[in-house]
Order: sequence, then structure tokens, then C-alpha cells
Amino acid sequence: MPEVTILINLKTYREGLGENAHRIARAAEDVAAESGVTIGICPQPMDLHPLARHFDIPVYAQHVDGVVPGASTGHITAEALRVAGAAGSLINHSERRLTLAGIEASVQACASNRIHSVVCTNNVLTSAAAAALGPDFVAIEPPELIGSGISVAKADPEIIGNSVEAIRIVNESVRILTGAGIQSGECVRIATDLGTDGVLLASSVVKAEDPAAVLRDLVSQV
Amino acid sequence: MPEVTILINLKTYREGLGENAHRIARAAEDVAAESGVTIGICPQPMDLHPLARHFDIPVYAQHVDGVVPGASTGHITAEALRVAGAAGSLINHSERRLTLAGIEASVQACASNRIHSVVCTNNVLTSAAAAALGPDFVAIEPPELIGSGISVAKADPEIIGNSVEAIRIVNESVRILTGAGIQSGECVRIATDLGTDGVLLASSVVKAEDPAAVLRDLVSQV
Amino acid sequence: MPEVTILINLKTYREGLGENAHRIARAAEDVAAESGVTIGICPQPMDLHPLARHFDIPVYAQHVDGVVPGASTGHITAEALRVAGAAGSLINHSERRLTLAGIEASVQACASNRIHSVVCTNNVLTSAAAAALGPDFVAIEPPELIGSGISVAKADPEIIGNSVEAIRIVNESVRILTGAGIQSGECVRIATDLGTDGVLLASSVVKAEDPAAVLRDLVSQV
Amino acid sequence: MPEVTILINLKTYREGLGENAHRIARAAEDVAAESGVTIGICPQPMDLHPLARHFDIPVYAQHVDGVVPGASTGHITAEALRVAGAAGSLINHSERRLTLAGIEASVQACASNRIHSVVCTNNVLTSAAAAALGPDFVAIEPPELIGSGISVAKADPEIIGNSVEAIRIVNESVRILTGAGIQSGECVRIATDLGTDGVLLASSVVKAEDPAAVLRDLVSQV
Repeated sequence: MPEVTILINLKTYREGLGENAHRIARAAEDVAAESGVTIGICPQPMDLHPLARHFDIPVYAQHVDGVVPGASTGHITAEALRVAGAAGSLINHSERRLTLAGIEASVQACASNRIHSVVCTNNVLTSAAAAALGPDFVAIEPPELIGSGISVAKADPEIIGNSVEAIRIVNESVRILTGAGIQSGECVRIATDLGTDGVLLASSVVKAEDPAAVLRDLVSQV
Repeated sequence: MPEVTILINLKTYREGLGENAHRIARAAEDVAAESGVTIGICPQPMDLHPLARHFDIPVYAQHVDGVVPGASTGHITAEALRVAGAAGSLINHSERRLTLAGIEASVQACASNRIHSVVCTNNVLTSAAAAALGPDFVAIEPPELIGSGISVAKADPEIIGNSVEAIRIVNESVRILTGAGIQSGECVRIATDLGTDGVLLASSVVKAEDPAAVLRDLVSQV
Repeated sequence: MPEVTILINLKTYREGLGENAHRIARAAEDVAAESGVTIGICPQPMDLHPLARHFDIPVYAQHVDGVVPGASTGHITAEALRVAGAAGSLINHSERRLTLAGIEASVQACASNRIHSVVCTNNVLTSAAAAALGPDFVAIEPPELIGSGISVAKADPEIIGNSVEAIRIVNESVRILTGAGIQSGECVRIATDLGTDGVLLASSVVKAEDPAAVLRDLVSQV
Repeated sequence: MPEVTILINLKTYREGLGENAHRIARAAEDVAAESGVTIGICPQPMDLHPLARHFDIPVYAQHVDGVVPGASTGHITAEALRVAGAAGSLINHSERRLTLAGIEASVQACASNRIHSVVCTNNVLTSAAAAALGPDFVAIEPPELIGSGISVAKADPEIIGNSVEAIRIVNESVRILTGAGIQSGECVRIATDLGTDGVLLASSVVKAEDPAAVLRDLVSQV
């Protein structure tokens, strides 16, 4: 069985900040231990260090700049993420777009610091382009599914399948995540059936009253 | 004697990251206690929470977004800064420019969370404009002095004096920092003689072998 | 009677491109001649030069960069606008935001080339800040009115009145436009009653079957 | 003999504005007719329409936005470029970077309007990524050569060769331009020997006293 990865993006939700981030991390740690599925969490930067220390799950940043450490105020370096204990970082999320040159620099900075890069993309062609940069993961976020309440299980998943195909022509080894429209264990199964290695999701876990219950459902068909 | 503020911007310097940030914070705490001068520090976001807990000095973020907590990946909210123990944030640093609407939103977000806003500006007119937004501080960074090695003590300080004058027409109470060209106690004295309430500086402290010695010099003529 | 200005922003609407821009410019020229009201037009850049040559109305760009002519690809300089016959430019429209430093540079570049600067703003404080930069016009675009179909005549016009008040503290001579929610002559009259010098509007003229008829209505209560 | 393309980027140089743009276009038209080499010109937007009408050479924009015509002020649509007579557009020039999603949207908008897309890139990996988007051209601008006065003939051209190789894995048919360090006919020959289909250059033509003489040298070894 191939390894399945579930990444939970806490965004800047209040329900995912500070003590709430700890609550969700605990649920992730529990369900990961029970199921054997890798469950990572992407908190806001100030929560990154405490979460990485207190929980035995991979903690990812939501954004990393490709700048070299030095005279760059207000940026987040891959080196600072590594020092803080991060396992990797999202790059180019639809809510934090970067230039092509910036994405490439961020991927390289992650590689230099031996942390994972997860480049988010919006369609078939940008997925192929991102794969050409050699990141660890490409996460496909079809804009029509983001925050829509429409699940990939019910929507036409053609864009995921076509993206996987386009990515594979360019890069055989990059891991791929389905990055929107994930609400249930059925969605996760469809995502892996379509050839992706897991999912990136946010509100359905972050805003849940019982995040562990949602996570147990998500891993139920893996 | 009016209160004098010294803010140390650690930027993304390696010399200001992790353990090094602690080292500089300790020096700042010591010299602040000795001198009665307020000395704040602006670390990278992952260092913010530990520094705010361990040291009795104000800790500022280098950047804050004006977004409302929610679906905004890779942003830093004022609420998250407050929860992490920040005293405030730089806004619109020359290395992290924001739109006018973004600056205003960041200033308001700081005010709503009762943390300080420090808006950086580059000349007389932008200083007046920033003052009109009602932040706690305006920090004037003349681009010809940034990272130039030229001290405000030796350069023509007309731009600082003119900016103070332009700011006062718009806003009588905002505090003003001299934000570039600060290297010595003489520079700090000139900055306050010109009507500003302190200084914002970076490399001369961050890259010093003995930050406490540099800070003792900086406060020597206050 | 104070001079009233009506600026028509053609945006990138198909209905305002090429031959359609000429059609709207002709309507503006006719109604301006009939009424004595100044009616300007803001076309896409490729239409600017022909419109400025063929019609006796002021033609404004939708955007200008503050860069000095030189090694800056894909930018629009104030000098190039002047050479093309532009009367001025919008700056910092809500659909084309600039940094504070960028707005200031654009305003200065317009002034150096003796063309008008029209800085768009989104609320009371950013309006005051923009006024501090000394442009020729500030155009207030309350985001709740932009493209909403809500007319300033029916919505609470408090934000316009408060902005005028805040602008006047900072700058007594800058001209002010009401930049959203304008649909009829009554709206224009309310805009001028609130102390602004005219209006900036888009779709209600650009998408009209008979732009001259809409313009005649707009000037009817001046 | 494969077709060779020379694109002259006028940037915002005064020497390439208005009457000066006409002067360079005339030189390009003359040398293209003499040599059979395709010589295109990339003027500022207000010069695009007159140049496209008056000269029998391809005229390219320096930038195009991927936005759909509509409520987007201060943007340049591919449709507006087509209407103005443009043959295509540079996209993502090093002085006008776009997001990955933005580049893809611009390439698609050019394709929909049947004009050429020329995506600029900065290294081997971004060149491969750009090629994955399916533009008509990729123009490789190694940052160490841009505006450096260093010619590709003398510098190590490894980055060009490696980029060509990486592009060809992803896209067999995209045409490739060497986008920096071009000063002479020898540079153009080296560029084509390295497997690229021509060059993109700026100051050495734009700032020349006799642009035709420079262009004659550039085509001399084709």
C-alpha cells in the first residue's frame, strides 16, 4: 500500500490558532497513530515551533520565501523554518500566490534545508509547470472546488486525473495531493484512486467541533 | 525627559535567528534595565513567541497583514501576534511594501488587538500620509541611508526634520522613529534632537560581535 | 458655480475598447459641449493616443507607474502618457492597487510631466493619507458601493462626507471625486452637495446602449 | 535554414519612446527586409498601435495580463493587444514578474486571441516550467547577464544549453530565445548554435546612435 498523506491547512482561522492549533494537532497525532496514515498540520508561523516540539506529526509552514537569509524584513526563510522544526512548507497557495521565479527559489531553499516543498497549483498546465521545478509535492487546488462545499467525489474529477497525467510526463516521482473539495473518507479514496498520494484540506477539519472524528472518517477508506 | 525608543530589526539575518535572537534579546534586556531606555526587538515570526515569553522587552513582528482571521493562507494576523505575546509590528518596511489600503488595514488590525503599529516610510510626503492613518509610530527610512553605512549624523538630516514637520501638521501625537543611518550614540542624539522619539536599526546591532556594547553606545547620549 | 468633473473609466470592458471607446468619447464630447461640464474618459492604453488626438475631451490613463524612464519593462511612465497626449492618470484604482511609495512616486511623476494625478482610495483614513501626497484629485471608492448597483443617493453617504472632512484637514485645495455608486443626475448632485467636485464612474456609461443619454442625465442637475 | 527571430525590447527608455520608437522600427524594417531575419519590436503600449500600422514588422507588447475583459482597471488584455494590431506579447519579463497562475492565464489569453506569447524565465528550472505552459516562445534571461555588459559570447553559456535541454524534455516545439547578454552578430550566432531560435535584447539597439548599424551586425552571422 502506498503511503497516504493528509495535510491540514489551519489558514488564519481562529479555530486553528494557539490553543486551538494544539487541539487539532492532538487529534491528528491520535488518528495518525491509530491509522498509520501520515497526517500533517500547517499552522500560522508563531504556532509552528511549539507544535513541532510537542507533537509527533509533521508540521508545515503555510508559506516560505525563497530569499537568502539577510536584509529581507518580513520574510520567512526556509532556514528559519528548519530551525523551528518544520517538516516543510506550502508554497504558492491560492491565497498566497508567488511569481514563478519566487516559487522556484522557495523550492530550492526548501531542498537546501532538507525540508519538504508542497507547491500548490490551479489547473492542469500550472501543475505540470510546478512539477518541472522538482518539488516534493504538487497540490492541485481546482479553483471551482476551493471553499465551495462541492466535494471532489461529486464534482467532475477530470481536472485531477488530467493533472496527474500532465505531471507524470514532466516528473515521474513528485508526490501529488488533491487540494480542494475534500470532505469525507470517500473523497480521500477517490483522490487516491485518481493517482494522487493524499489530500490537502482546511475548513472541514479546522472548523469541526470534533476534529478527530472528521479525521477518522477521512482515513476510513485508505 | 521624553521616552526614547530603540527598535532592533533582526530581519532574516542568520545572526538574528533562533539562539542568536535570544542572545540579542538578552543584551537588549540588560541595556534597557541599565539605561531606562525602551529597547524593542523585531525577530522572525517563529522566534516571536519564545522571545516574548523569556525576555522583559517589547517584541515586535516585522510584518502584519490587515486580513481578518479566516480563509487567508500564509498571512500573519494581528490577532495571532497578540496571542503570541507581541507588543506590536512593523508595517510597510522598505523590504516588505504594502498597498496603501493594506497599510491602513494593518494599522486598524493592530489597534483592534491593542498592539502597536509602526509604519515605515521613505520620504516627507509618505511620512505625512502614513501619519494620517493614525498609527502609533511612523519610522522614516530615507532610502539613501538604508544599509548605506552613511550615518544620519554625517548625512544631511534635512529629510528627517522636514518629515517631522510634515507629520506634525497631520498628526500631533504619533511617535516618530529615525529609521536608517543609525550607528552610534551620537546618531541617536541627533535623531532625538531632530524631533523624533527614537530609532529603528538593524545590522549595526544584529551583526555586532558584542550587541550589548553597541546598545550601550547607542543609549549613551540619551 | 464650481467646476464639476465627470470621469468615465472604461476599464477593460469590450464595450469600451477600440471603436467602442471612440463611440463613448464622441458622446462625452457632445454632452460636455452642451452642458459645460468637464467629461473625461479613461481608456485602455492602446486607445489613449488616438482618443486624445481625435476628441476635444481630457483623456486619462487608468494606471501610471512611478518609475523613471529606463530599464523597466512592462511599465507605463508619466512621460509616455504626456507624449501620447494624456491629460492625467488614475492611480491606485481598487482593481490596480499600488504601494504607498508607489502612489507617491506616481503622483510626483505626473506632477513632473504636468499631467493630472487622480488617486483612488477606499475609506476615510486612506483618503486623508492620499491627500497628504498632494495629488490633483482624490477619488473615494467605498468598497461597499463598487459595482454594487447601490447608488450613493440611496446608500448612507456618510463615508463621502467624512472623507471630505478628513481630506480638508490635510489638504485644502485637492479636488475630490465620488468614485462609486453613481448612476444618475441625482447621484451627481448628491456627490457635489457632499462637497466633492465630481464623480468617477464606469459601467453605467460604458455598458449603456446610449451613452450620451446616460451622460445627459448625469449632468442634468449640475 | 531555420527561422531566426530578433526581438528588440524598448523598455521604458526615452530613446525608445514616440518618435524614437518609430526611428528604431524603421531600422528594424530595413534590416529585416535586407536580411530575411524576422525582427520584432516591443514598444510601450501607447506606441503599439501606430507602430503596428506604419511598419511591416511584428510588434509585441511588453506585458499582457491574463484577465478576461471586464471590471479590471489598469490592466492590458490580450484582446486589446490584438485589436491594436500586436503580433504578441512578452510575459513575465524580469522587470515585470507574474505569478505562475498569472503567466498561465496570459499564455492562454494570447492563444485565444491568436497572438504570440513569449514567456521570460531566469534559469533552467523556470525555463522548463514555462515550457510546460505551452507558450509560443520561452526567452531565457540569466540574471547574471541582464544589463551586465557581459556578452553571452564570453560568459559561460552553460545555462542556455542546459535550459534548452530541460525545455526540450517538456516541450519539443516551443521556440526559444536567448534573452540577455546579446551585443553582436557573434552573440546571435552562439545563441543559435546553442539551440535557441533567436534573441531578445534591449539597450544595445535602443541606445545606439545608429540602430540599423547594430542590427546589421546582429544579423551578420545568421
